[in-house]
Amino acid sequence: MFEVRVKTSNRVEAVNITDKIADLVKEKDARLLHIFVPHTTCGLMINEDADPNVVKDILDSLERVAPRDHSYRHTEGNADSHVKSVIVGSSVTVPVSSGKLLLGTWQGIFLLEFDGPRERRVLVTLL
Amino acid sequence: MFEVRVKTSNRVEAVNITDKIADLVKEKDARLLHIFVPHTTCGLMINEDADPNVVKDILDSLERVAPRDHSYRHTEGNADSHVKSVIVGSSVTVPVSSGKLLLGTWQGIFLLEFDGPRERRVLVTLL
Amino acid sequence: MFEVRVKTSNRVEAVNITDKIADLVKEKDARLLHIFVPHTTCGLMINEDADPNVVKDILDSLERVAPRDHSYRHTEGNADSHVKSVIVGSSVTVPVSSGKLLLGTWQGIFLLEFDGPRERRVLVTLL
Repeated sequence: MFEVRVKTSNRVEAVNITDKIADLVKEKDARLLHIFVPHTTCGLMINEDADPNVVKDILDSLERVAPRDHSYRHTEGNADSHVKSVIVGSSVTVPVSSGKLLLGTWQGIFLLEFDGPRERRVLVTLL
Repeated sequence: MFEVRVKTSNRVEAVNITDKIADLVKEKDARLLHIFVPHTTCGLMINEDADPNVVKDILDSLERVAPRDHSYRHTEGNADSHVKSVIVGSSVTVPVSSGKLLLGTWQGIFLLEFDGPRERRVLVTLL
Repeated sequence: MFEVRVKTSNRVEAVNITDKIADLVKEKDARLLHIFVPHTTCGLMINEDADPNVVKDILDSLERVAPRDHSYRHTEGNADSHVKSVIVGSSVTVPVSSGKLLLGTWQGIFLLEFDGPRERRVLVTLL
């Protein structure tokens, strides 16, 4: 198990962590990568890392599903962050071969921060 | 492979299964936990288990995304349950070390019932 | 690692790939199946394969969450496809025993095409 730290700078933000993760996989004999955030107000996703507008559209769409200013029961001001985290999920998995992530041409791995800025932990398991 | 049974008491409900799952991991030499529900109208999620309002906000938000009383094609009265199950997913994975789940301070594992009350099966695989 | 090709015929479509995947698992000594799409505008899900209306309700619900004709920043006309892919996810996992997928009675594995028609790749890892 490896741990990667990710500092976020805004309340809501997508941080591309593909290179950090790819480095951990290099020269290892793994078949599957599992990464996990031990947090309840951020998540992980795999999607396009070419046009940054794609990630913005994704974050905007999640905001429409769980608006920050909706009237929630949880009163810490981050109920929307919990909902968004559940929708995207706390983990992603990627097949690995010969020390390389088998990501598609347009795929990147992102930590989605929904309640930053914070320092987040990403737990990496290679199987 | 282990199997855990979970009885739900309401149509929609979140059941905290963290302790049941943690017991299965104890004293085992696993690196990753995989749990799976072989059902199409319930799901699994990892999120905050401290303030019960968080889970209620999550269930309410899913209800806004797929309202029970929307006009669906599927006529068994549980189309919304299928949609919600797909959004949260049928499985979760958690890294394990020294027989302990590496969950964050605020994280719990929940079975989300969307079409109860029923008895649900949870299949547990340790890798 | 195995690769399965899936041809889709419409812009939005659910293709049941359960039989293709079940064939790959047969007579293998695996405990967990992992399947992954190296694409950013399609996803994978597990849900009911009995009444085809369930899948239609799921696709309709995702369309309400991320309508095709919404005004997005990404200008290639498939921003909604990216959003939907993130919500359902790029991978699914299923426990395996004695060469059989431990799917529930009503569960099937679907590739959800959100920007077809295309030929899609599905990467299959057995652990």
